[in-house]
Amino acid sequence: MSKKPTYDPYSRRHFLKSTGVVIGALGGMALSRPAQAVPAPAPVPQKWDTTVDVLVVGTGFAGLAAAIEARNAKANVLIIDKMPLLGGNSVLNGGDLAAAGSKMQKEQGINDSPDLMYQDMMKAGNWLNYPELAKTVAEHSVEALEWAQSIGAEFNVVNYHGGHSVKRAHQLVQRSGSGLIMKQQQKAKELGAVIEQRTKLLRLIVDQDGSVVGAEVRRRYKFPDEDSGNIAYIRATKGVVLASGGFSQGVALRQMYDPRLTEEFTSTNHPGATGEAIMAACMVGALDTQMDWIQLGPWTSPDEKGFGYIPQFVERIVGYGLMVDPVSGKRFFKETGNRKERADAIIQLGHPAVIIADKTNTMNMVDPGQREGALKNGSLKMFNTLEEVAQAYQMPVGAFVEQVNRWNGFVSQQSDPDLGCMIFKDAAPNVTPPFYAARLWPRVHHTMGGLAINKDAQVIGFDLKPIPGLYAAGETIGGVHGAVRLGSVAMTDCIVFGRIAGKNAALTA
Amino acid sequence: MSKKPTYDPYSRRHFLKSTGVVIGALGGMALSRPAQAVPAPAPVPQKWDTTVDVLVVGTGFAGLAAAIEARNAKANVLIIDKMPLLGGNSVLNGGDLAAAGSKMQKEQGINDSPDLMYQDMMKAGNWLNYPELAKTVAEHSVEALEWAQSIGAEFNVVNYHGGHSVKRAHQLVQRSGSGLIMKQQQKAKELGAVIEQRTKLLRLIVDQDGSVVGAEVRRRYKFPDEDSGNIAYIRATKGVVLASGGFSQGVALRQMYDPRLTEEFTSTNHPGATGEAIMAACMVGALDTQMDWIQLGPWTSPDEKGFGYIPQFVERIVGYGLMVDPVSGKRFFKETGNRKERADAIIQLGHPAVIIADKTNTMNMVDPGQREGALKNGSLKMFNTLEEVAQAYQMPVGAFVEQVNRWNGFVSQQSDPDLGCMIFKDAAPNVTPPFYAARLWPRVHHTMGGLAINKDAQVIGFDLKPIPGLYAAGETIGGVHGAVRLGSVAMTDCIVFGRIAGKNAALTA
Repeated sequence: MSKKPTYDPYSRRHFLKSTGVVIGALGGMALSRPAQAVPAPAPVPQKWDTTVDVLVVGTGFAGLAAAIEARNAKANVLIIDKMPLLGGNSVLNGGDLAAAGSKMQKEQGINDSPDLMYQDMMKAGNWLNYPELAKTVAEHSVEALEWAQSIGAEFNVVNYHGGHSVKRAHQLVQRSGSGLIMKQQQKAKELGAVIEQRTKLLRLIVDQDGSVVGAEVRRRYKFPDEDSGNIAYIRATKGVVLASGGFSQGVALRQMYDPRLTEEFTSTNHPGATGEAIMAACMVGALDTQMDWIQLGPWTSPDEKGFGYIPQFVERIVGYGLMVDPVSGKRFFKETGNRKERADAIIQLGHPAVIIADKTNTMNMVDPGQREGALKNGSLKMFNTLEEVAQAYQMPVGAFVEQVNRWNGFVSQQSDPDLGCMIFKDAAPNVTPPFYAARLWPRVHHTMGGLAINKDAQVIGFDLKPIPGLYAAGETIGGVHGAVRLGSVAMTDCIVFGRIAGKNAALTA
Repeated sequence: MSKKPTYDPYSRRHFLKSTGVVIGALGGMALSRPAQAVPAPAPVPQKWDTTVDVLVVGTGFAGLAAAIEARNAKANVLIIDKMPLLGGNSVLNGGDLAAAGSKMQKEQGINDSPDLMYQDMMKAGNWLNYPELAKTVAEHSVEALEWAQSIGAEFNVVNYHGGHSVKRAHQLVQRSGSGLIMKQQQKAKELGAVIEQRTKLLRLIVDQDGSVVGAEVRRRYKFPDEDSGNIAYIRATKGVVLASGGFSQGVALRQMYDPRLTEEFTSTNHPGATGEAIMAACMVGALDTQMDWIQLGPWTSPDEKGFGYIPQFVERIVGYGLMVDPVSGKRFFKETGNRKERADAIIQLGHPAVIIADKTNTMNMVDPGQREGALKNGSLKMFNTLEEVAQAYQMPVGAFVEQVNRWNGFVSQQSDPDLGCMIFKDAAPNVTPPFYAARLWPRVHHTMGGLAINKDAQVIGFDLKPIPGLYAAGETIGGVHGAVRLGSVAMTDCIVFGRIAGKNAALTA
């Protein structure tokens, strides 16, 4: 039966010619959307190519934690990752792990508790977090830290991150998530878990009873060539753990939730964070939750790649310098607004904003290394006069200079009646050259949504019951962070639910 | 293969004993969650009980519009509704239809255009709306109005609704959606469409090729008894149109997206708005979008049922009187904040807020009929002194009286430095007895999210392709309104996409 409708009440059809992906719902936007390989359910194959107890998808913090615990529980474990490089987004992580009530905190006289961390998470999440998931992460945060230490990870500083009530971000000596990933890989291999790179999950396989019993995969896959490698079937007699990350890089997919996020928005994530595994789970009945909460960093520059230097410049400068719309030369949103508010305001402009601070404010606040790095890659520029700033960004000179003077008046009076920006006490009027300026355009940073799980890391279906044999952890899941994830909680979340998922999968009867 | 995990790292299990519905992810909340009947995919049956061309689920604006257009296109049409009463939420609708550029507007000198309506919808929706869907509604809004008139509906006033740039809400003479529903039913029957009440969609049926070919239903269903009636199979040779409404009354389901929305939050909706049809579609691979955007009205009273009188009292009083937390006796959020901000703030209190205005402000602003109705049902109370108000709501007397005096100072100076409430020019200090007061607790009002469709009303799957044979319209779909639906656009949306869905289903080859 062909079901193509023959009635078209409006002018044109909206199919991506190359792939047949429908973009009708997303039409009317400026840019075309690249195709995305997305999976459908697969039947149980005649023959399995590989049989294991537990199949783990993803080699980041969560996947490796799951693999280690599954092995500790005596399961035979295979870990697959579609990318040639192991570690997913975790190796791009800044290396901070939130733990509430640790020994390191106590030594530094920091009073903290799981309840305080839980409250911070809920507040940041606009109280949309699944309370029990957030509580589980907070209550097991110190255990997660100690577990990381037990497999050889070293932490030496306790940092502060915005939104937390106290310093609780324990920093790896390497200042990068790779410091933990290396130890996790080492441990997983030592325990006998097998890691297969360049093997991509295509579809989950469900038996007659509705249990997930394995996966259709593509081995020797060469990202992003969807025809590369060969199809194979992996049977998982106990369970499948999805720990395949988020979908910040999945342009077509993320636009289904936030149509503004065209390919014009790049991402701070590794290129493989495209979310097909989440869709593969939904295709077998898994409920996806809070997918609409996609975090954009308002502080990235279109003039450098990835995360870059500019976010640090911006976060030190807000409350000192000013951010303007280059078309009008005027301020348009309070510089100290939260990430979401600022990103939304810049997107609404439709073009990059410009942030400016003078020598005094920049020297006082910005780390010299960050400043030099940004000047060197060209994302930060230096000017002798405000007129030069205006010319460089094609701003109306008069309006811009008047706006800077107006802002300097607000700095002197310590209050911004125009937009309500916080002005810090040590801010100085921006009058001393050189003036530093950078362009800002948000990048997709983290997808809060994902598969719904219960606190046993079992994936919940659209029938609100757990799907037998299917577990998930890490950025693949939704609900832990609600509307907004706090910095440094990702690593904790990944370890806590990764361990639970791996153990539960292994102990499945 | 049994997949129950045997490893439980934490204390207790979280299954709703009566039904097996997992609530682990939602634990830690005050109230228990009632079970919700949710469907799973069904196999193609040996024998069909009924065969039609087009099966429409739901008898509201959208479902009846779909049925009428399917019949106009010569399809054999069966409409089912699980409730004994036809019309779903549409009969509770206030009877306002947004249309941009109508004859009635022109006669009144109102300058309007589809583009202006589109911009209003996008702004209210925080620009999360699917642009093409919003555009389709705006561009066909006058056509929707004229279509309603062509089947006998009468409109006599053009109203204003918050968030619109101009008056464009065309009001039915009956001041209720039932004015249109009656005409639609009449037309559908006249054209030969069959309506079956008390027939509930259980599961959608998909053939080998992935096309939706029918539905498993429960006939002679007695809401909400999930065991009532008998199972039957309805074949739809051309297509199924889902127009079954939203999920404001689906407590377990809505908590999967916003865990705060326990059964403590009642709804302004009819009791059948529980969303199972959306889940049934997801179970066959339909992608649900923007489910997290659930609109609460911050203006409802726990002391009356449904929508009630108090919302009108509140919306007239904000900017004149004040809203306080009875525990502290103090204000806690600006009274003129938007629906979402105010509802979030009251929920965060954890108990009802109290709103107060004196005689002068009440008499000047509130419709006498509304005031009398509210006094009569007890949701609005009258007091001779502020001390009596405090005692009635167990507020700290001193703090409350001081707060009213402080507010009156703000009224005099026309500015609220505490919370930034707008104060209207004709506001008077609240000093003249009697004082009027009411308790406020938000109610769930509208679910913006639902199934993703393209502009042909085809339902999109998790593989981002249309699902053959499946169409949807009305509150069942997501994306038209983005984060926030504007008043009076619901009826337009339902007619526009209901008609498209019905025609396309009927013309399916």
